[in-house]
Amino acid sequence: MPYVNIKITREGGPDDTGPTAEQKAVLIKGTTDLLAQVLNKNPATTFVVIDEVALEDWGVGGLPVAEYRKVQSG
Amino acid sequence: MPYVNIKITREGGPDDTGPTAEQKAVLIKGTTDLLAQVLNKNPATTFVVIDEVALEDWGVGGLPVAEYRKVQSG
Amino acid sequence: MPYVNIKITREGGPDDTGPTAEQKAVLIKGTTDLLAQVLNKNPATTFVVIDEVALEDWGVGGLPVAEYRKVQSG
Amino acid sequence: MPYVNIKITREGGPDDTGPTAEQKAVLIKGTTDLLAQVLNKNPATTFVVIDEVALEDWGVGGLPVAEYRKVQSG
Amino acid sequence: MPYVNIKITREGGPDDTGPTAEQKAVLIKGTTDLLAQVLNKNPATTFVVIDEVALEDWGVGGLPVAEYRKVQSG
Amino acid sequence: MPYVNIKITREGGPDDTGPTAEQKAVLIKGTTDLLAQVLNKNPATTFVVIDEVALEDWGVGGLPVAEYRKVQSG
Repeated sequence: MPYVNIKITREGGPDDTGPTAEQKAVLIKGTTDLLAQVLNKNPATTFVVIDEVALEDWGVGGLPVAEYRKVQSG
Repeated sequence: MPYVNIKITREGGPDDTGPTAEQKAVLIKGTTDLLAQVLNKNPATTFVVIDEVALEDWGVGGLPVAEYRKVQSG
Repeated sequence: MPYVNIKITREGGPDDTGPTAEQKAVLIKGTTDLLAQVLNKNPATTFVVIDEVALEDWGVGGLPVAEYRKVQSG
Repeated sequence: MPYVNIKITREGGPDDTGPTAEQKAVLIKGTTDLLAQVLNKNPATTFVVIDEVALEDWGVGGLPVAEYRKVQSG
Repeated sequence: MPYVNIKITREGGPDDTGPTAEQKAVLIKGTTDLLAQVLNKNPATTFVVIDEVALEDWGVGGLPVAEYRKVQSG
Repeated sequence: MPYVNIKITREGGPDDTGPTAEQKAVLIKGTTDLLAQVLNKNPATTFVVIDEVALEDWGVGGLPVAEYRKVQSG
């Protein structure tokens, strides 16, 4: 009876506006299969919820993601 | 001092784009009343946050919800 | 296909160590019924997860709950 | 290795549609610094995720926020 | 920069008190690899947090999990 | 009306079993003050919830935290 929440930054995909529905479907299937294999969890009662988060709403290293990457690559 | 988070798929409502503000208000009132009745929680410090999730972002049975329903009804 | 998370402080119940299993069952039933009534959500795919949080881990008004109540009751 | 999630109502900012990217950056930096100072947490592995929630999706006192404020100020 | 939260009921494992540390490590690795393969996410900034939830704190079908299973198998 | 959730690994503090109640109180005050200063949020309706997570339940880099640190320092 697992519940999985995947939070990712909204980027990537064909036009860099986030993953495609197909990519999300692969995440859903992969996570559900993993829980079935490792813990014998029933896929029928496994929920996976994906949240896309705007870059300005995600911080790491004390900076919004975009700023953080500039500093890292700088 | 409860905090309640309700996640639902974005569908239903008058034009199938999600619940109306009135329906959400009923969820907020119902949940808050329930916590007051069962656990004597003070409504003034009860928060309810509702998240609507796009169908492609919600998986069950290893499939996005729309696919899952097709298989179930198939 | 709702997912509901209820966070409450760990207190109350017969020995003030938190709600009983019976009280939790009432919360689970009440929340699930509410979603069925208001949004026609299927109880079979409605998850409710309850988290009890220690008083020292919950803050309001800039203070841990126990301190906050002392100040309020003055 | 902290993960911080900040949920706020979508309001305020220059046109009342929510905080600016600059304000969010201050929240990210402030939270990350706080965890470094108090618990010696490494900023490089501190994530901060900000969620803005529409007023109709946030309830307090058994009412959506906008209704609640009317009653309070009434 | 993904954050993944996996919530499971506390059961299973060698003495039915929950998954072993080894099983959790497999979940962590599997989820992280999946995000790297599907979305090219960097494992170094992928967090996975696992929550075990007591059976009485998880509801489905309007019942705590243990009751729900009795009804289903009944 | 903010809600802040801080998740940290259960370690540090005087006997390495996690932060003290005093340290948590500083986190609660600091976060609440930050939201008041940056976004003018009312402390009376600011909730802060702290979750401590066992090391075996937190993964980064595809490994449980303790393993990850061994590899990093190795």
